Amino acid sequence: MTAALLTPIALHDGRIRVVIENIRPSVDGGRFPVKRVVGESLVVEADCFADGHDVIVCELLWRRAGADAWTRQRMQALGNDRWRAVRVVESLGDWQYTVQAWVDPFLSWRHDFERRIDLDDVRVAAKGGAALIEQAAARAGSGAEAGLLMAWAAELKAALAAEASLEALKALGLDELRGQMAQRHPDQQHRLVHHPVHPVTVERERARFSSWYEFFPRSAAGDGVRHGSFTDCEAWLPYVQRMGFDVLYFPPIHPVGRDRRKGRNNSLQTVVDDVGSPWAVGAAEGGHDAILSELGTLDDFKRLIGRAHDHGMEIALDIAFQCAPDHPWVKDHPQWFKARADGSIQYAENPPKKYQDIYPLDFESPQWQDLWLALAGVFEYWAGQGVRIFRVDNPHTKAFGFWEWAIARVRAQFPDVIFLSEAFTRPRVMHRLAKVGFSQSYTYFSWRNTKQELTAYFTELSQGPGREYFRPNAWPNTPDILPAALQYGGRPMFMARVALAATLAANYGIYGPAFELQEHLPLREGGEEYLDSEKFQLRAWDRERPDSLADFIGRLNQVRRDNPALQSDAGLRFLDIDNEQMIAYAKTSPDLSNIVVCVVNLDPHHAQSGWLEFDPEALGMQPQQAYQMHDAISGAHYLWQGPRNFVSLDPQRCPVHLMQLRRRMRRESDFDYFL
Amino acid sequence: MTAALLTPIALHDGRIRVVIENIRPSVDGGRFPVKRVVGESLVVEADCFADGHDVIVCELLWRRAGADAWTRQRMQALGNDRWRAVRVVESLGDWQYTVQAWVDPFLSWRHDFERRIDLDDVRVAAKGGAALIEQAAARAGSGAEAGLLMAWAAELKAALAAEASLEALKALGLDELRGQMAQRHPDQQHRLVHHPVHPVTVERERARFSSWYEFFPRSAAGDGVRHGSFTDCEAWLPYVQRMGFDVLYFPPIHPVGRDRRKGRNNSLQTVVDDVGSPWAVGAAEGGHDAILSELGTLDDFKRLIGRAHDHGMEIALDIAFQCAPDHPWVKDHPQWFKARADGSIQYAENPPKKYQDIYPLDFESPQWQDLWLALAGVFEYWAGQGVRIFRVDNPHTKAFGFWEWAIARVRAQFPDVIFLSEAFTRPRVMHRLAKVGFSQSYTYFSWRNTKQELTAYFTELSQGPGREYFRPNAWPNTPDILPAALQYGGRPMFMARVALAATLAANYGIYGPAFELQEHLPLREGGEEYLDSEKFQLRAWDRERPDSLADFIGRLNQVRRDNPALQSDAGLRFLDIDNEQMIAYAKTSPDLSNIVVCVVNLDPHHAQSGWLEFDPEALGMQPQQAYQMHDAISGAHYLWQGPRNFVSLDPQRCPVHLMQLRRRMRRESDFDYFL
Repeated sequence: MTAALLTPIALHDGRIRVVIENIRPSVDGGRFPVKRVVGESLVVEADCFADGHDVIVCELLWRRAGADAWTRQRMQALGNDRWRAVRVVESLGDWQYTVQAWVDPFLSWRHDFERRIDLDDVRVAAKGGAALIEQAAARAGSGAEAGLLMAWAAELKAALAAEASLEALKALGLDELRGQMAQRHPDQQHRLVHHPVHPVTVERERARFSSWYEFFPRSAAGDGVRHGSFTDCEAWLPYVQRMGFDVLYFPPIHPVGRDRRKGRNNSLQTVVDDVGSPWAVGAAEGGHDAILSELGTLDDFKRLIGRAHDHGMEIALDIAFQCAPDHPWVKDHPQWFKARADGSIQYAENPPKKYQDIYPLDFESPQWQDLWLALAGVFEYWAGQGVRIFRVDNPHTKAFGFWEWAIARVRAQFPDVIFLSEAFTRPRVMHRLAKVGFSQSYTYFSWRNTKQELTAYFTELSQGPGREYFRPNAWPNTPDILPAALQYGGRPMFMARVALAATLAANYGIYGPAFELQEHLPLREGGEEYLDSEKFQLRAWDRERPDSLADFIGRLNQVRRDNPALQSDAGLRFLDIDNEQMIAYAKTSPDLSNIVVCVVNLDPHHAQSGWLEFDPEALGMQPQQAYQMHDAISGAHYLWQGPRNFVSLDPQRCPVHLMQLRRRMRRESDFDYFL
Repeated sequence: MTAALLTPIALHDGRIRVVIENIRPSVDGGRFPVKRVVGESLVVEADCFADGHDVIVCELLWRRAGADAWTRQRMQALGNDRWRAVRVVESLGDWQYTVQAWVDPFLSWRHDFERRIDLDDVRVAAKGGAALIEQAAARAGSGAEAGLLMAWAAELKAALAAEASLEALKALGLDELRGQMAQRHPDQQHRLVHHPVHPVTVERERARFSSWYEFFPRSAAGDGVRHGSFTDCEAWLPYVQRMGFDVLYFPPIHPVGRDRRKGRNNSLQTVVDDVGSPWAVGAAEGGHDAILSELGTLDDFKRLIGRAHDHGMEIALDIAFQCAPDHPWVKDHPQWFKARADGSIQYAENPPKKYQDIYPLDFESPQWQDLWLALAGVFEYWAGQGVRIFRVDNPHTKAFGFWEWAIARVRAQFPDVIFLSEAFTRPRVMHRLAKVGFSQSYTYFSWRNTKQELTAYFTELSQGPGREYFRPNAWPNTPDILPAALQYGGRPMFMARVALAATLAANYGIYGPAFELQEHLPLREGGEEYLDSEKFQLRAWDRERPDSLADFIGRLNQVRRDNPALQSDAGLRFLDIDNEQMIAYAKTSPDLSNIVVCVVNLDPHHAQSGWLEFDPEALGMQPQQAYQMHDAISGAHYLWQGPRNFVSLDPQRCPVHLMQLRRRMRRESDFDYFL
């Protein structure tokens, strides 16, 4: 045994006896931020304790990232060494929190003093207390409280000198108001601040609650022959506004590559007027910061942004970091792409599949720093033109480190920017993208159809560990995904799917007008690609068609706007209903003032009915009290009583109940069931 | 916006695309060690993935703490981006592990090459592959494999030049043996090593599996009049050995304070021959490194250690860091104690209760470093005399930081030392003590009586997050705790409680001979203190009493030694039995070769019976195959069949079945039920 084997005494002060553990919320121990939007609460909890039975004080520390000073807030003991503080997050940007705690000599003294019953003990303790109060006075400096505390200590000493009674000494020493004053100047010399500190990203409300409408401007002219423009899009704004969407999302608006352009229905052959895929970004005239001339000018685009704003909508752009072979970067920065062994540039492939119209960027390029700057520059450019929402195409094929850096960089300049991750891939990859900064994430909703699938998946999304950073955005269809259910389920299935998306997830979207016009023919039997997809051609859409679901969708979005319960994901609880074809769930607002019960018939062919379990007592009502359920879709009112009520839905009329509960509360604490 | 707002490009290489997350096991993210004993397996898992579809390689890194170099071991993909490696821990001490991963260019190339179907593609890819093989050869240095790899690359290039067929090129490029050779020299330039690394403490087997017998040497003389000595203890060794215990644990053996000594039954008055409490440590003749003269000399003690060893037992000492008023430290180091406001030394108290015979040490002393060294010195001193197991009294009233430092310091010199934490306090405090280094921990077992309580508590202990660091040690009684159940339950309750302790927990102990002689009278009605407790007086124990449970306990300990299933905690699963007075559980060894089913009648007054659910199919047996249950307590054999079998226990005979399952396995993979 040598002295070197001995563990050296801790470099920190060994007299720090308090422990802080298990801070929540926490994403990977503070490695990644928790997400909130302005106005939400952050409920921070931690285990804090010390050896022995001394009294400790715990405080939440809170600051803007980069600031030196912390704002302090006392935490409350929940019992069992758990402490909590609630903080409303007030403004955009990056924040940090941690917990500090200390063994508090004054409070420990007070705790014991209160329990002493022996006069001699009380006298000795009172003397000790006077000394602690004098120390608090010294820490109070030159303020008014210093004098008041000194006077209190003197009073205690005088009472001792005058041989005051036990009762008099205890009353004086336990003086409540002056005790609080002493507490404002605590002895923190053995204070512990928990490291690492935890980050929080505060975004605007739309990061949590948004309704997206994906639209190809190329079809805005309406006849399927003339290429649509931003000016043509203006005519669509009232229509999309009537449906109640607040994000109008465009596929890439850049010049479309001509080299190896794809024809209609993804054909390798093109004819002269084929418009190609907008995801084949870039041509001789420009790349990711240019606009396809058929769509208009930058001024046209900026005017459209303004018009959309007048209609209560924001324009979201699709950023697809990949290049057509004639993208200017291919010539100007060949080092940003992988080379094949024959010297040619590597096109996208997943052998044996090849996508020769697309060149992926090489995140292992020796010039990766230039590449990162150029890519971040794309967001910066469009944000500079007024775009504040980006839907990012296939982020899971670009380095995670790049996203973490780029999103932080863009947010440092434009804190109100929202990023949607279009990653349909393995769960951990999707979660990592959310952790590194994406505001919202596409989900597996498109392929979750049965009651069991939907229940398991949305329970995980709303209650699982991802709830602190992964904000789902549910899409019943996209230009790439026409799910089998929509191919075969008819109008009732379209209604059910959009209602599920709009109520299970606070963020949702549809690809229209294909959705509301119930476009359902696939390119190939068994596939999910649309026949005659707008990805490769212009389309004529008759938005006035009498069978359109536009009014139904408009009603759904109105219900979403009217009900805070539908504007966040956390308040989701599934309800029992004794019919496997029916799914039911309640959503509650954080303050429980708003409760919506959704029931959906998943069978598009037959009317289904069942008994729904819904406990009104858990919602603060008397068991015998009847309560009203107002169906915000049909306008019908139902009077319910007790925990079991009958529901029935005919898909030919409407497969969905969205029922607002109308009742008087008993008291707040009765709502534990929904917490 | 200023440039300073922009996030600088990561200082690390942005081309590192791989991600490592969620390493398990992990105690507080690597802040504290995972615990194992020599010979156990450490199963390490992590989420590892990269963007895109490139192939990654993951390795477990393993080293002794303080070493520079890592031992590497490939991890296996479990699917869904989860990876695993299993490592057997081979020797005592502190170890570390972490995970490294990289995107592997050669394996990525091979994965794609295998899937290529187009001759032109295969030719270009073969050329790229030859280059990758040449790079592997360069990394192989001057070894034989370098030449073999160069030759392989040359063969590929020659085949290309000779316009070989697609089949020939693919066969050559996918050569299995040479592919493995290339893999031995991987391109790790974009490798990521996960930080922080995780610690592991490897202890000896007794840290996991031990049977404790607490014994007051003061009563070893046997007549309750003469003070017992270490020499008298030697006569007890065969008795304790027959009962099958392997740890003989003594309350403090130091001089007992005379100042304010407590009399019999905790009385404040003493008479002349009162021996006081051994936990009032220290008197004029010595403190924590001295031996009470009545017990004998240091040589006597060391001889007893040797004799105990001859009987298969180790002596464990009780270390109680508190001082009697006449402990030498009080005079020599008054700064190590708190002063009251009247200048006297602060005795232990929890107002209004006072313990004036005990002075606690002050862990906020300005001389805390000297105090820490002195306290660690106590362990070092006794370890130097040959003691390797310490039961630590009330560790929760001493600073956690001290324990973390002291245990590491003692282990650095004596890696085989075992520490048992005697903390009966709040759960998080008990867990923290286990995290900072205690090998074993007292539990709430003494107060968990009903089927529901025992099931919930031992499920938490064996399956909860504490399983990686908190090793329970279950005691049906201690000198401080005579639980109500033992006061009123009679002999059947003593049998049930010790059987539960011995089978639910791999570490357990009893305070004897009070236990086997069923001492059950409390000092006060409703209290848990023993009447005429050995804590304050000598006792005469008749170890030959015919109603003694010594034989029963000996049988229990023999069953424990015979069955690896009972030697660890992880393999515990509770079984359904349709009688609330009966509890049943199975324990399995890690390799599932040993299975014990325990059934206990918790009702000490009436025979109880019920149908036990136990799924033989899940254990690899044919559903129709009968299997034998051998009751290792009674020696009876039962032939069972199917998942439901009848059990009955009469508490007047024996309230316990400990049944070894005897059957032939079907195959290992059928054992998932028990994993």
